[in-house]
Amino acid sequence: MSMTVDRSQIEALVRSALRSVHTESSSAPVSSGAAVSSGAATGSPLEWVDGKPNLRVSISARHCHLTDEHVEILFGRGSVLEPDKNLYQDGFYAAKQTVMVVGPRRRMLPNVRVLGPTRPFSQLELAFTDSISLGINAPVRHSGKIEGTPGCVLVGPAGSVQLDHGVIRAARHVHMNDHVAAHFGVANGDMMQLVIKSNDCSVTFDDVLVRADKAAKLEVHIDTDEGNACNLDAASEVSLKPMTPCGCSH
Amino acid sequence: MSMTVDRSQIEALVRSALRSVHTESSSAPVSSGAAVSSGAATGSPLEWVDGKPNLRVSISARHCHLTDEHVEILFGRGSVLEPDKNLYQDGFYAAKQTVMVVGPRRRMLPNVRVLGPTRPFSQLELAFTDSISLGINAPVRHSGKIEGTPGCVLVGPAGSVQLDHGVIRAARHVHMNDHVAAHFGVANGDMMQLVIKSNDCSVTFDDVLVRADKAAKLEVHIDTDEGNACNLDAASEVSLKPMTPCGCSH
Repeated sequence: MSMTVDRSQIEALVRSALRSVHTESSSAPVSSGAAVSSGAATGSPLEWVDGKPNLRVSISARHCHLTDEHVEILFGRGSVLEPDKNLYQDGFYAAKQTVMVVGPRRRMLPNVRVLGPTRPFSQLELAFTDSISLGINAPVRHSGKIEGTPGCVLVGPAGSVQLDHGVIRAARHVHMNDHVAAHFGVANGDMMQLVIKSNDCSVTFDDVLVRADKAAKLEVHIDTDEGNACNLDAASEVSLKPMTPCGCSH
Repeated sequence: MSMTVDRSQIEALVRSALRSVHTESSSAPVSSGAAVSSGAATGSPLEWVDGKPNLRVSISARHCHLTDEHVEILFGRGSVLEPDKNLYQDGFYAAKQTVMVVGPRRRMLPNVRVLGPTRPFSQLELAFTDSISLGINAPVRHSGKIEGTPGCVLVGPAGSVQLDHGVIRAARHVHMNDHVAAHFGVANGDMMQLVIKSNDCSVTFDDVLVRADKAAKLEVHIDTDEGNACNLDAASEVSLKPMTPCGCSH
C-alpha cells in the first residue's frame, strides 16, 4: 500500500476536517451498549440475575489506540490522553482527543476517537463499512494481532504519524471473569455464539472469542456493521452460548 | 418528522452534490453478489448442483424506486428511466439516474441509485448505517409495506419530490421459483435462515422472507450492513434452511 499524501495535502485535509467537525454528527458513539437480559429485571450490570450472568452487548465504533510517543507527535510534546468518558471495562476510557485518518487515494475519516490508556503499539479499529469508505482492505483480526495488516496516516493538530501496519477490523469478542467463564463452561480463547433477537432482523454471530481474566466485566464487543445488521439498540433478547462443532447449541 | 429544507437550500445542496460526484466513490455497488455453493462446481446460476439449487446472495446497496410521475418531476418532463445494468432478476435494472436524498436537519446522501422499472409508489431503501447518517429512523419493512414510515426529500436535476413516507430498511428476503420452494419445503411468505460461513465472522441471519413465484431466480437480498457484518465477498459457504420454531435447523 503506497501512501501519496504529502505535507501540504495533509494540511489542507486538516483544515477541511476542522471545518467539518461541527457538521459531522453521523458517527456512532464509541460504545452504545444494550444491556438486555432475558426476562430479568435490570440491576447492577455485574449482578447475576436468576442464577445467570447479566449480559451486556456493546457496539465499538471506529477508534484507535496510540503509543505514548504517537500521542506526543500528534498532540504536541508533553501531551497525554485526557479521559472524557469511562468505558464499561474498568480502567479504559474514550479520550477527549480524536485523530483524522487518511487512507490511500486521499480518502479520509475526519474524526476518529482515541481510546485510552496508551498501548505499546498504535492500532486503528474500523468496521468494514468504514474500511470500504477509507479504501483500506482491513482484515478481521483480534486486538494486537497486527502483523501483515495495512497501514494508514494519522493526523493530529500537532503532527502526523505513518502507521506501516495496524489497521484492522476488530474480531468479535466477549470479556468476562473466570467465574462467569466457568458458568458458561468456556475458557479464555474459546469461541461462543451471540444470539440477538430483534424484530424482523434477528442474527446469530459465531466466532465470538472469549477473553477471560480475573477482573473483566461480562461484555460482548461487536462493531457498528454488526450492531446495525441486527438493530442492536432495539433488540428484545441477547444471549451467549458456547460454540458447538456444528455451530448449533442443541 | 418535520422537513425544514426550502428551495434555496435545496439548490445549494444540489450544487454541492454535483460538485461532490467526482470525489464520491465510497458507495457500495447496487448488487455485489456472491454466488457460492458448498463444494460444488460453479455453473449457470440457474443450475441445480448435486441435486441442490445453486444459491446466490446479493447485497442491495441503498437505492430508490420511483413512480412515472416522480421520474418526470425529478429528471424533466417526458423523462423515463434509462437502464444501465441489468440486475440478476429478469426485467429489473439499475438505471443511469441517481437522486440526492435529503433528510431532516439538511443531512443528505448525494447520489442514490434509482432501480427500474417504475412502480406505483416511490420508496427509498437504506441500510441502517445510511439511515443513521441521514438522521432518519427507518423501520425494517418488506418492500411495499410503507404505511407509517418516515419520508424524505428526493432531489434530481429537474426538480424535487417530498415523500411523506416510503423510507425503509428493506427486510431480508429470498426470491425463488415454486420448484425451488418445494425443494426447500417452504411456501411464499415463510421464513428461512441464511447461514454465511466466513473467516472469523460467520453469521446466521434469521427472518429471511420467502418471495416465491413462477419465474424468480434463487437469490437472497441482504443490505450493506448485513453483507459487511459477515464479509460476504469473502464467504466460503452460504446456505439456506427453513426456520424452525427454536431458530435451529436440527
